[in-house]
Amino acid sequence: MARGKFITLEGGEGAGKSTQCTALAAVLRDQGLEVLETREPGGSPGAEEIRELLVHGSAGRWDAQTEALLVFAARRDHFVTRIEPTLSRGAWVICDRFADSTYAYQGYGRELPLEPLRALYRFTIGERQPDLTLLFDLPVEIGLARAAGRRGAAERFESLTSVFHERVRQGFLAMAAAEPQRFAHIDATQPLEDVTLEVRRSVAARLGVPL
Amino acid sequence: MARGKFITLEGGEGAGKSTQCTALAAVLRDQGLEVLETREPGGSPGAEEIRELLVHGSAGRWDAQTEALLVFAARRDHFVTRIEPTLSRGAWVICDRFADSTYAYQGYGRELPLEPLRALYRFTIGERQPDLTLLFDLPVEIGLARAAGRRGAAERFESLTSVFHERVRQGFLAMAAAEPQRFAHIDATQPLEDVTLEVRRSVAARLGVPL
Ligand SMILES: Nc1ncnc2c1ncn2[C@@H]1O[C@H](COP(=O)(O)OP(=O)(O)O)[C@@H](O)[C@H]1O
Ligand SMILES: Nc1ncnc2c1ncn2[C@@H]1O[C@H](COP(=O)(O)OP(=O)(O)O)[C@@H](O)[C@H]1O
Ligand SMILES: [Mg+2]
Ligand SMILES: [Mg+2]
Repeated sequence: MARGKFITLEGGEGAGKSTQCTALAAVLRDQGLEVLETREPGGSPGAEEIRELLVHGSAGRWDAQTEALLVFAARRDHFVTRIEPTLSRGAWVICDRFADSTYAYQGYGRELPLEPLRALYRFTIGERQPDLTLLFDLPVEIGLARAAGRRGAAERFESLTSVFHERVRQGFLAMAAAEPQRFAHIDATQPLEDVTLEVRRSVAARLGVPL
Repeated sequence: MARGKFITLEGGEGAGKSTQCTALAAVLRDQGLEVLETREPGGSPGAEEIRELLVHGSAGRWDAQTEALLVFAARRDHFVTRIEPTLSRGAWVICDRFADSTYAYQGYGRELPLEPLRALYRFTIGERQPDLTLLFDLPVEIGLARAAGRRGAAERFESLTSVFHERVRQGFLAMAAAEPQRFAHIDATQPLEDVTLEVRRSVAARLGVPL
């Protein structure tokens, strides 16, 4: 049985990741594929408990290093208990945020140096990378306005300043430019249907499925 | 104001760490020193919440890497919110278990390679080390028998096999041999009063206080 494909969706708040995650899972299932739709931080029972520590409480509750360690602890649990077993048995995994969000938020955003975060990645995951990372890019103000209109938007990261979010956006763009073979850059300002179509085209072209 | 001294107490289960931690804090306070007596994992409100995740649930709940990441997340919170501010204002810190327990349990015990754990230490703490580490050494069976006789002994680590505990003991001994300037090796099989006396003598000799 061929190993399944691992697709991650990345980008700022309100970029449309969660919307497109569900849409992509549906269209892949229509092709007869088994698909696990998941998200970070969280995605496994242990990781969801760690997520609770991350998303509750005041913004200054954890410093950037502690936050990064908790995020990677949750990622390790999610990866070893759910993602890797799913890929091994040939099913696909579509994950709403993954390690690039840590580089973008804790690295570029909170200004931790990137190299120790990459060392944490190697400790946590090893050498494996997602097969495809869809970057949903749009100006910070548009994303924050969309997120504000969405229920349940009171999460901690969303209360940070737009200077921070601009660093995060530029971080995602820099990573996508540095790894064009893994990233697909998607203009997330387009109407929803157009974004959905571009996601299907990217997945079809990069991973060779007829969508 | 001179920086306070940072003393850690290490060793296997039932070695007498917690008993000696309290005794040492008392004798230092008798010298007029301000002393923070603390423990790991835990020691700050955030770290205690992370500790809850570590000590509850079944033994296989977290793999060795996830456990190490959680332990270092708790350590970072404990260090930046309590230990470092206390040392900076000139008070002493006595900590029941610290990073050597991670090397001993997750490294030697669960057989994770030590170098990534040392990299986690640098990410979490930087270059600082305890000023003195008291290693309470005794045969595994004696320690486990003592711990079994103590109330609240049903913690997860204590249910592991004695082969594991033997690796932990040998790990502590190897670390103490490699860093004799930081470690004081204490024979914890001695009667309680003799151990207490040896602790006082070690602290007096190594850190120059008249105990
Ligand atoms: N292309 C789009 N154009 C306009 N609104 C969108 C678009 N994509 C998503 N939305 C809306 O924006 C809000 C945030 O979308 P969501 O998928 O939750 O973003 P994210 O998961 O990236 O934060 C939702 O209300 C969603 O319906
Ligand atoms: N030197 C000693 N000789 C005999 N019993 C001891 C000695 N030191 C401690 N104990 C007892 O052993 C048990 C474990 O001691 P404790 O300080 O809790 O160990 P640790 O914190 O290292 O697990 C306690 O009941 C304690 O009273
Ligand atoms: Mg979302
Ligand atoms: Mg104890």
